[in-house]
Amino acid sequence: MQQTLRVLATMLLAGAVVTAWAQDVKPDRAIKYRQGILQAQGWNAGIMNAMVKGEKPYNKEEFLLRATYLDELSHMAWEGFIPGSDQGAPTKAKPEIWTEPAKFKQYQLDLQAAASKLVVAARSGDMNVIKPAFNDLGKACGNCHDDFKNK
Amino acid sequence: MQQTLRVLATMLLAGAVVTAWAQDVKPDRAIKYRQGILQAQGWNAGIMNAMVKGEKPYNKEEFLLRATYLDELSHMAWEGFIPGSDQGAPTKAKPEIWTEPAKFKQYQLDLQAAASKLVVAARSGDMNVIKPAFNDLGKACGNCHDDFKNK
Repeated sequence: MQQTLRVLATMLLAGAVVTAWAQDVKPDRAIKYRQGILQAQGWNAGIMNAMVKGEKPYNKEEFLLRATYLDELSHMAWEGFIPGSDQGAPTKAKPEIWTEPAKFKQYQLDLQAAASKLVVAARSGDMNVIKPAFNDLGKACGNCHDDFKNK
Repeated sequence: MQQTLRVLATMLLAGAVVTAWAQDVKPDRAIKYRQGILQAQGWNAGIMNAMVKGEKPYNKEEFLLRATYLDELSHMAWEGFIPGSDQGAPTKAKPEIWTEPAKFKQYQLDLQAAASKLVVAARSGDMNVIKPAFNDLGKACGNCHDDFKNK
């Protein structure tokens, strides 16, 4: 996605648009939506992790594809955390998501930055460049899970 | 995503890479993965549908964002239909997905083409351009559901 559209997405989804849409959406649907995206992030991260660890043969094109998918997905889940969706379907979302929105938002931005950097690293085809970028992505995932996701 | 990467994705995911990954993945995980992506497609399509029908105010930027998300997602779900994942978790996938792979693949390509065209239409900001493109997208969804998804 172009950078301008990314910026637009951030502006839009932080503001009135989501609020308007949220009024139409039931919590269980929002929960399933966000879980679907987050699980898809994990699907792609899992494959990249296997390549970084040498458990699966490294393939430059596939790694780049996975990084690109994760970069795209990293913008999508957050609008699913609508007010009131701390319940309505099984969820591991902690209440802090709604009581510490600035911190939650910062973690989203950190993930998106790490995912963008991983795409750039993946284009190099050099595992010495990819590995630290992938580790940074893993930290971004982990930081958010530690503070905002129940075990 | 750049067009070259799109083509690469299609090549990769049609071939050996998915087969290799599929060996490591349990059917229930693949089912949940693909359902998450398909549900996210529906999430975005639902919002665009509300705008096309006038149930939600049309917003050019949001519509373009939704079309872009759907375009990105339209490449992701299919690798989740690994052999043996006709069961393992609740699924509406028909057996024809695995017995008529060429037809199933064509429907994927049709969806991806419709989603790409919708992004272009969305950039116009003209509902007279957007509406037929959105209807084509709806047909692509519906054709696949008719033949490959149980009610």
